[in-house]
Amino acid sequence: MKQKAIFYHAGCPVCATAEQTFVAALDPARFDVEVVHLAQQRARIEEAQRAGVRSVPALLINGQVFHINHGADLKDLV
Amino acid sequence: MKQKAIFYHAGCPVCATAEQTFVAALDPARFDVEVVHLAQQRARIEEAQRAGVRSVPALLINGQVFHINHGADLKDLV
Repeated sequence: MKQKAIFYHAGCPVCATAEQTFVAALDPARFDVEVVHLAQQRARIEEAQRAGVRSVPALLINGQVFHINHGADLKDLV
Repeated sequence: MKQKAIFYHAGCPVCATAEQTFVAALDPARFDVEVVHLAQQRARIEEAQRAGVRSVPALLINGQVFHINHGADLKDLV
């Protein structure tokens, strides 16, 4: 069964680069990656915060948050 | 042909988590990942700096540097 990974972003250029290069490099045989645009899906900001996301872009995988470079602080999206 | 990706780290706990979860999630059909321990392979610090690495752990992929969370600044390894 595939694992779920969630890529949180906010449409920033840093986010777009990370999505195109980094998220695209994940093994599609093992991961289903959901891409969540937090500026457009504001109802999911709280979920991201609970998962430990402090800034975007971030990838949640195996319950662990990886902040990739820095586009925007989550607190600035609230 | 596989693309080469380089994961730079310095043996820190943040680096180890990133390697075990994140680097392991890359598609092995498309990427050959070299893991470089900069504290043990100090001759490669300059190469990492030239590539744009400012802190570890970092992944160099398609010529782009992705800083993943934050373990240590590269300048502190020099």
